[in-house]
Amino acid sequence: MEKNEIGKELVVEKLNKRGVQIEEIANIVHIMQSPYQKNLTHEMCLESVESVLKKREVQHAVLVGIELDELAEKNLLTEPLLNLVKSDAGLFGCDEILALGITFGYGSIAISTFGHLDKIKIGIIKELDVKGSNKVHTFLDDLVAAIAAAAAGRVAHRYTNTA
Amino acid sequence: MEKNEIGKELVVEKLNKRGVQIEEIANIVHIMQSPYQKNLTHEMCLESVESVLKKREVQHAVLVGIELDELAEKNLLTEPLLNLVKSDAGLFGCDEILALGITFGYGSIAISTFGHLDKIKIGIIKELDVKGSNKVHTFLDDLVAAIAAAAAGRVAHRYTNTA
Amino acid sequence: MEKNEIGKELVVEKLNKRGVQIEEIANIVHIMQSPYQKNLTHEMCLESVESVLKKREVQHAVLVGIELDELAEKNLLTEPLLNLVKSDAGLFGCDEILALGITFGYGSIAISTFGHLDKIKIGIIKELDVKGSNKVHTFLDDLVAAIAAAAAGRVAHRYTNTA
Amino acid sequence: MEKNEIGKELVVEKLNKRGVQIEEIANIVHIMQSPYQKNLTHEMCLESVESVLKKREVQHAVLVGIELDELAEKNLLTEPLLNLVKSDAGLFGCDEILALGITFGYGSIAISTFGHLDKIKIGIIKELDVKGSNKVHTFLDDLVAAIAAAAAGRVAHRYTNTA
Repeated sequence: MEKNEIGKELVVEKLNKRGVQIEEIANIVHIMQSPYQKNLTHEMCLESVESVLKKREVQHAVLVGIELDELAEKNLLTEPLLNLVKSDAGLFGCDEILALGITFGYGSIAISTFGHLDKIKIGIIKELDVKGSNKVHTFLDDLVAAIAAAAAGRVAHRYTNTA
Repeated sequence: MEKNEIGKELVVEKLNKRGVQIEEIANIVHIMQSPYQKNLTHEMCLESVESVLKKREVQHAVLVGIELDELAEKNLLTEPLLNLVKSDAGLFGCDEILALGITFGYGSIAISTFGHLDKIKIGIIKELDVKGSNKVHTFLDDLVAAIAAAAAGRVAHRYTNTA
Repeated sequence: MEKNEIGKELVVEKLNKRGVQIEEIANIVHIMQSPYQKNLTHEMCLESVESVLKKREVQHAVLVGIELDELAEKNLLTEPLLNLVKSDAGLFGCDEILALGITFGYGSIAISTFGHLDKIKIGIIKELDVKGSNKVHTFLDDLVAAIAAAAAGRVAHRYTNTA
Repeated sequence: MEKNEIGKELVVEKLNKRGVQIEEIANIVHIMQSPYQKNLTHEMCLESVESVLKKREVQHAVLVGIELDELAEKNLLTEPLLNLVKSDAGLFGCDEILALGITFGYGSIAISTFGHLDKIKIGIIKELDVKGSNKVHTFLDDLVAAIAAAAAGRVAHRYTNTA
C-alpha cells in the first residue's frame, strides 16, 4: 500500500472505537430501503456500507470528523470553535457539509435519505445524538447518517432494474 | 425591468396555475420550523417563501421544472424521457438535483429539510405526489419541497440568535 | 433490459446527433489530467468517459439537457424560458446545476475541473459555446464539461496510488 | 451579541493572522468579474467579500479550516490525518468540500469560479499554495478561493440587470 493510503480497515476501527459498529449502519440502510426492495437482506446492506467505506474521500471525511470530535472532547480546539463543536449548535453546518460530501457519489436518493436521517435520527444515530454526556459526537452522527444514506443510494441503484 | 428579468409575480402565477398556493408552502415551513422557533408565525414563514421566490436561480428552476411537467402532460417530450418524467421514476434524479440547487443558498438546514420533505411528503407536496391522474408533477413536488426547505433554512438563520 | 432502462448506447447516439463524439470528450480529460498522470493514454480517458456514461443519473441528465436545447431550437418552450435558454443567459444557472449533478459522484477534483472547464471552454466545449448560430447548446456545453470533469476525477482516483 | 455568535471581525482577524488580507480576496473577485462588469470597482468587490464573511456558515467553515491547518502545523493531529493535511494531498477532498459549502449560497457562477480558482490559483491563493515551508495552508487556500468565488457570484447577480 502506498503512502497516504488509508484503507477501509482503519476507518472501521476508528468507527468502532467511537462506539459505531458497521452492522448498526447496515441496520439503518435496511430500514430505509426495505420498503422499496422486497428481497433486501442485511448482508446486502452491509456489503454496501463496506463498499462506501472503501472510497477514499469517504475515509478522509470520517478521519476529519472523528478527529474534530475527539479534539473537542479533550478541549484541544480553540474558542469559539470549541464551544460550537461541543454544543453541536444547530446552525453550525460544517458537520453536515462534510457528511453531505459522502453522499454525493450515490445519487439523489442518497442526498434525500441523508436529510431524512438527519431529522429522524434512528438507531445508532439516535444513540450518538444524546447531548449532555462527556462524549462529543457532533460530526460522528452526521457521518454515520451520510454513510448509511450513501449505502442506501447504492442499494437503490444496484437492486432496482427499472429506471 | 430588463430583458430576461422574470420577477416573483410570474413565478407565483405559474405555481398557482399548477395548483400550488404560496400559503400552502408557508404552512410546510411552519410545520418544519415551529418546533425550534416558539414565536414563529405563518406571516414570518410566508415572508420567507416570498424572499426565496425573489431569487433569480430559484425562479429559473421553477420555470424549467414546470415546463418539463407540462410538456410531459402534453406528450411533447421524446422517449425515453417522456416515460421517465410521466412515471416519476424513483431513480430519475434530475427533479431532485434541480430542486436541490434551490436549497443551496440557505445553509445545511435547508438541505436536510429538503431531504426530509422528499421522504415524508406532507401537505401540498403530498397532494402533488398522487400518481395516476392526468397531471404530471414529477418536478413540481420537488420544487415545492425545495422552496419550503429553503424558506425553513432562512427562518432558522434569521430568527435564531445563538449560532 | 427493463422498462425505463436507457443504456450507454442511446446516450452516445444522442450526443453524436448533437455534434459531440465521445473521443472529443476523452481529449479534454487527457488535457486536464495528463499533467498529473505521466502515463495517461487516450484509451484510459475514453474508458473513463464510457464508465461515466453508464451511470443512470448521468444518462438522465444528458437526456433532459439535450431535450431542452432541442425544444428551444424549435421554439417549443414557452416564454420567458424560451429566451433564457436560447440566449444562454449567464445567470440562468439550471444548465450548470444539472451538469454539476453529474460530477458529484467523482470527488472534489471532478467538481473543480467542471468549474475550470466552464470558464476556459476548450476543445469541443468551445465549439459548442459559439452563440449566434441556429443551434442551441445551452445545456450541452455544460453537460460535456461535466462528463469530462467526472471522467477526469475518475482517472485521478483510479490511477493515483497515494492519497 | 448572543452566545456562539462569532461576527465578521473575528473571522477577518483570523484570516489576517494567517496572512490573508480581505483586500487581497477582493482583488481576486475583481480579476474574475471585471471582464463581465465594466464599472466594477475594488470597493464593490470588497463590499461583497465582507457580505460573504457576515454569513454564519461561512464563518464556521473558516474557523474549522484554519483550526485544522494550525493543528497540522503544530503536529497536533493524529496519523494518518496529520500527514494528509500537511502534504495537501491532491485527493484529500475535505478541504474542497468544506470550501464548496461556502459557495453554495451564491449561485452556479460561484461554484464554477471556485473550481476555476482551485486550478489557476492566482494572487494570494497562489502565495498560500506554496508547499515546503513550515506553514500549512491546506484548508486556507481553498477557503480563500471559495470566499472570492462566493463574492464573485454575488457581484454577478447584484450588478447584472438582465438574467
